[in-house]
Amino acid sequence: MKLSWKQYDLKLKHTFRISRSARDTAPVVILTLEHDGIIAYGEASPSSRYGESVETIEAFFSKINLSRFDSLFFIDDILKYVDSISIGNTAAKCAVDLALHDWIGKKLDVPLWKMWGLNPANAPLCSFTIAIDSKEIVKQKIREAEEYPILKVKVGLDNDKEMIETIRKITDKPLYVDANEGWKTREKALESVKWLQDQNVVFVEQPMPAAQFDDIQWLREHSHLPLIGDESVIRLSDIPKLAQAYSGINIKLMKCTGLREAMKMIHTAQATGLKIMMGCMIETAVAISAGAQLSPLLDYCDLDGNVLISNDPFEGIRNTKGKMILQNKPGLGVTPLA
Amino acid sequence: MKLSWKQYDLKLKHTFRISRSARDTAPVVILTLEHDGIIAYGEASPSSRYGESVETIEAFFSKINLSRFDSLFFIDDILKYVDSISIGNTAAKCAVDLALHDWIGKKLDVPLWKMWGLNPANAPLCSFTIAIDSKEIVKQKIREAEEYPILKVKVGLDNDKEMIETIRKITDKPLYVDANEGWKTREKALESVKWLQDQNVVFVEQPMPAAQFDDIQWLREHSHLPLIGDESVIRLSDIPKLAQAYSGINIKLMKCTGLREAMKMIHTAQATGLKIMMGCMIETAVAISAGAQLSPLLDYCDLDGNVLISNDPFEGIRNTKGKMILQNKPGLGVTPLA
Repeated sequence: MKLSWKQYDLKLKHTFRISRSARDTAPVVILTLEHDGIIAYGEASPSSRYGESVETIEAFFSKINLSRFDSLFFIDDILKYVDSISIGNTAAKCAVDLALHDWIGKKLDVPLWKMWGLNPANAPLCSFTIAIDSKEIVKQKIREAEEYPILKVKVGLDNDKEMIETIRKITDKPLYVDANEGWKTREKALESVKWLQDQNVVFVEQPMPAAQFDDIQWLREHSHLPLIGDESVIRLSDIPKLAQAYSGINIKLMKCTGLREAMKMIHTAQATGLKIMMGCMIETAVAISAGAQLSPLLDYCDLDGNVLISNDPFEGIRNTKGKMILQNKPGLGVTPLA
Repeated sequence: MKLSWKQYDLKLKHTFRISRSARDTAPVVILTLEHDGIIAYGEASPSSRYGESVETIEAFFSKINLSRFDSLFFIDDILKYVDSISIGNTAAKCAVDLALHDWIGKKLDVPLWKMWGLNPANAPLCSFTIAIDSKEIVKQKIREAEEYPILKVKVGLDNDKEMIETIRKITDKPLYVDANEGWKTREKALESVKWLQDQNVVFVEQPMPAAQFDDIQWLREHSHLPLIGDESVIRLSDIPKLAQAYSGINIKLMKCTGLREAMKMIHTAQATGLKIMMGCMIETAVAISAGAQLSPLLDYCDLDGNVLISNDPFEGIRNTKGKMILQNKPGLGVTPLA
């Protein structure tokens, strides 16, 4: 069993500005797992919101010793061990989970979606993200996003109305709105949500800081748009209490340590009646294709992280007009381009 | 795709008496699914507690038309369709789920436990059930159960103390105690549980009728033994509220429609901190081997349904001294003996 890794600096087509940050490039680390003649891939896309960087990811990978396991099929044991190495580091842990799943799918010669009994036809259309920008750039982005049937709009700075009104002058496509914790008081959040109710908005994601749980509960009681938790839901054990404040959850592989825990979160959301969204970070086709394997189980799909970059080093599940095309390729279904 | 079925009358080694019934034979229906050169098996063991019989099971099977599906891998779609045929009928639905999983495992040439990433070494020891009986017969049963390290004792009639005292004169093995809804008032339940606390009892299962949820909550607040819900938990959506009254849940394939929903229930129990037990009805090696595939995920394993019968028509996962031996056989790992 051999693990190796390499950093890639992903170039964004446009500056990616959300309520708390802006960037033109995004570094990720691709993990390669070689065993029994099979080469498998994983990916970690670090987020400073969750305390990760390329350095913490590479340091985490250096600590992993898989030689203690008799079989890579013992994924439950292996991931428990990986999770126990240290707290946090969810993107680094995710890379291991993805590589193990890719390996098992390749070993059994079956795509993960098929091994899991899912039908690609059930996958919802995927949204395309419009980050915060000036009127002119937003207009340009909307034109570039013409093929995508659903838009996800970042808000939470001081130009929310301008963003939405600029978009609505050009298109009546359904909008997902993501405040990324940007509204800091319940009054501001309520005013924003009430205004958005009349703008053909499907839901509002993470209206206020995750720490303000009571305010989000209050907001839900005083408004009608479904609220989806993102920064409020990291891992499995966060879910049971969330049904009190949210209509749904945004699962991200990089937050929750990978596909295995994501599946558990989906099942728990089904049990509690929460809607299921899957989102992503800025990622290559490796992590996007991993998330896409679960897409038939989603209510809302937001897996456009690699559509926003110009130098994806991998080829994988393609997003065509918002539809994730799940092919009959084993494991994650990805191939390096170099 | 061809479905066929056959009734078997399983002969119990001893009369099986619990708080609400007694019987010497148990009818089950074995479902056979043939497709693409593969023969796969499922099983339905009807319980009158849940309104099923051989007749309702065979009537349900007659309504199933799998020809509308392009692939047996679309297990999520197929089981949604099967579930929609009518409400209830969970054992009949379970037979279909088991046969589909057996088929997929055989098609991919992998045991289910391995496809699911589980390590057989993590499976807890399995308990052996002592049903309600006279002192003399109980003594004989305890001797016959010598190889099994954990006993599960049925109580809930008028001889609870006699049952336990008879057992404790012979052995100090850990006991699981199952009242099967037998204690009808909170006072009676509390008195029983308090007495059991001093008898090396690990937990008490379903102390009172499922409908008396408030009484069970009260019982939990007033006693120390963990309470496990059985009749209180049928399917996935029952779980979230149960954490208020129970420490754990007893999942049975025949109640919950099969392996797919059982896996979802396990994940939801993990999210809510509930202990996970898997139980069974009187069943052949088909359904017992199906449950055993999930045994590495359990806290308590009670899969002895086929150890209690003398004419099992199948060979499958063997229970040796309470250890379920998960072998490297594809699918459920079962073979008909005839």
